[in-house]
Amino acid sequence: MAKVNQNYLKLPGSYLFSEVARRISAYSAANPNAKIIKLSIGDVTRPLVPAVIEAMHKAVDEMGAAETFRGYGPEQGYDFLREAIAQYDYKSRGVDIASDEIFVPDSAKSDCGNIGDIFGVDNVVAVCDPVYPVYVDTNAMAGRAGDYQEELGRWNKLIYMPCVQANGFSPEIPKEKADLIYLCFPNNPTGAVATREQLKAWVDYANKNGSVILYDSAYKAFITEEDVPHTIYEIEGARTCAIEFRSYSKTAGFTGNRCAYTVVPKDLERDGAKLNALWNRRQCTKFNGVPYVVQRAAAAIYTPEGQKQTQEVIDYYRANTKVIMDGLSRAGLSASGGVNAPYIWLKTPDNMGSWEFFDFLLEKANVACTPGAGFGPSGEGYVRLTAFGDAQATREAVERIVKIL
Amino acid sequence: MAKVNQNYLKLPGSYLFSEVARRISAYSAANPNAKIIKLSIGDVTRPLVPAVIEAMHKAVDEMGAAETFRGYGPEQGYDFLREAIAQYDYKSRGVDIASDEIFVPDSAKSDCGNIGDIFGVDNVVAVCDPVYPVYVDTNAMAGRAGDYQEELGRWNKLIYMPCVQANGFSPEIPKEKADLIYLCFPNNPTGAVATREQLKAWVDYANKNGSVILYDSAYKAFITEEDVPHTIYEIEGARTCAIEFRSYSKTAGFTGNRCAYTVVPKDLERDGAKLNALWNRRQCTKFNGVPYVVQRAAAAIYTPEGQKQTQEVIDYYRANTKVIMDGLSRAGLSASGGVNAPYIWLKTPDNMGSWEFFDFLLEKANVACTPGAGFGPSGEGYVRLTAFGDAQATREAVERIVKIL
Repeated sequence: MAKVNQNYLKLPGSYLFSEVARRISAYSAANPNAKIIKLSIGDVTRPLVPAVIEAMHKAVDEMGAAETFRGYGPEQGYDFLREAIAQYDYKSRGVDIASDEIFVPDSAKSDCGNIGDIFGVDNVVAVCDPVYPVYVDTNAMAGRAGDYQEELGRWNKLIYMPCVQANGFSPEIPKEKADLIYLCFPNNPTGAVATREQLKAWVDYANKNGSVILYDSAYKAFITEEDVPHTIYEIEGARTCAIEFRSYSKTAGFTGNRCAYTVVPKDLERDGAKLNALWNRRQCTKFNGVPYVVQRAAAAIYTPEGQKQTQEVIDYYRANTKVIMDGLSRAGLSASGGVNAPYIWLKTPDNMGSWEFFDFLLEKANVACTPGAGFGPSGEGYVRLTAFGDAQATREAVERIVKIL
Repeated sequence: MAKVNQNYLKLPGSYLFSEVARRISAYSAANPNAKIIKLSIGDVTRPLVPAVIEAMHKAVDEMGAAETFRGYGPEQGYDFLREAIAQYDYKSRGVDIASDEIFVPDSAKSDCGNIGDIFGVDNVVAVCDPVYPVYVDTNAMAGRAGDYQEELGRWNKLIYMPCVQANGFSPEIPKEKADLIYLCFPNNPTGAVATREQLKAWVDYANKNGSVILYDSAYKAFITEEDVPHTIYEIEGARTCAIEFRSYSKTAGFTGNRCAYTVVPKDLERDGAKLNALWNRRQCTKFNGVPYVVQRAAAAIYTPEGQKQTQEVIDYYRANTKVIMDGLSRAGLSASGGVNAPYIWLKTPDNMGSWEFFDFLLEKANVACTPGAGFGPSGEGYVRLTAFGDAQATREAVERIVKIL
């Protein structure tokens, strides 16, 4: 009898976003005239920029002619893209990353999960709380999380690192020894960033303990402040302890276009094995590369027009962020994030619970947010607002919030 | 200290295709005037058809305009594609597959590997010999294959099912109990197909023993004979024991475009769990869908023009197959496959070893093939030829082979 992976049976229902959707549609059904504005969505709304569109049309035409048709590409990604990444995302920051340390997958979400394949089941995993659920669920599936404790909303084998107001939403180094440490800066959901000193402490900890930092930097395009590191490899020692995940989803509106990249430095060894070689083997065996047309699209982001145009889109979302932050401030609310990130982490007023405030905002202002408790126990008493909406709708949502508070 | 997945360290080097490439380039360097023709490639060479190209251009334009832009799509694939698959690939064969039993990934290779995520490590796995290496390597990575026995070229926990001349290259049902059984028809590398009766025996075995059949049907577009099943779900009882993998790579030249689909029937339960629900959870957690543009490309295959045009490409490759088969027959060689598949499985003459014949063909005819021994011990004494090349080059390669034999 075939046996299923028992760890899957331990997973609690994927509650957060489905419950948000359920409450919105229930409200909408009961109040058909309500014009609900969603500051809850983590998806972009602006179209792909002209330089990307042009590159895609050109690549589509290449695929339609025998002389220029491309079949299987390299599992790791085409050199034209890997070299552009090395040049424009790393060398430009004074960081040496070789193109064969870069792997191009369809999604940072995929790789944040799949990276677990090359690690043993017996690693101790540390995650932030609140946290992007993919880190937790994929480790639960692999058997590294132990058992789910319903009453605590936690898995008993994970180390949870609270990210709260007292530590500026940047986790403290745990007292326990962690083997695999997921960090995400700029952070989803809190919008917090780590300083150079904070990252240096993590890198030193990881090198000392032989840990591996799994560094999700999907939102780096939103960094505005000078001293915030854009990549963990700006920190000395990171090449021997960190894997970095990047995505074009938010950088260039690729959520429907699907392209990302993962950096596994050749200096990174554990158990006497080079993780770059293990990951290469994993990708060559279980993956077949990103569509040629999409890789051409990604490469177009690095052209002068692509850079200028994607920056304009980022600026559009940044303006939304500012509108939200200013409005919340006028309403006397306490919010963080929103400076180097497209996410605003709002403390609910009057110690309202996350879901209570969600309902309040939905009913009184017809604005949807995402309850912080859904991202982990330490998210209770917060909600996440996003800057990815239409500018006018965002302004209107903010005015409605200001009015009711 | 982070621990790596020790199973990765047991994997032997990925020898076959790199060694083929090494020998070709060594020969080429020593004989710069030799015009080598590769009948070794498993990649298509004809461009995407006009209906697909047109659909892609249209979808690219949609992605460039705010009103029609698409962000995150459903992880399972868009309904327009899943419904087309259900209609044209199943209902047309008298088979009821609901669209929510269909999952659209980037690659059948990915899913053939990733499907292991939902199964326990303690399942007994059966594979054909010779075999597509992905089934073996991904199970080795997951710890289901045990240890690699260098001298035998086998893993000690896998059940190998010899596919040899005596059984028409269709495996016999093993005496041992197998929990997970990988079957691939039309077969890579032998080009063999299973009859309705043979598949029925597998389905009955699987239902009786609670096994799951992982049915790779990537080459079904090449079936020409009337009575050969196009999908395992044409066999009564398959809905309670089989998962089917399909790919557009060979059907429509999508090797560089990346789109496939996987069917997990809702009737398929093991350990009291519905595999459709487990796989859905896996995909929602570790995957984010195929690019919108690529899904539109795949859907265009099902339009009348798309059907006609892709059929023309299949016919082009089929004509190559016939050229190869006829030539080998004229040369007095024994070959199988090549009727319902783009692969020809050639018995080497004079009991030559696979690699010996590879060298012989390369040196005497400047034609490259793939040594059968690279697909497993039972492939020794065979080589694989493919029909995916240019028609004229294929004809020339065959003439050269005929001349030297």
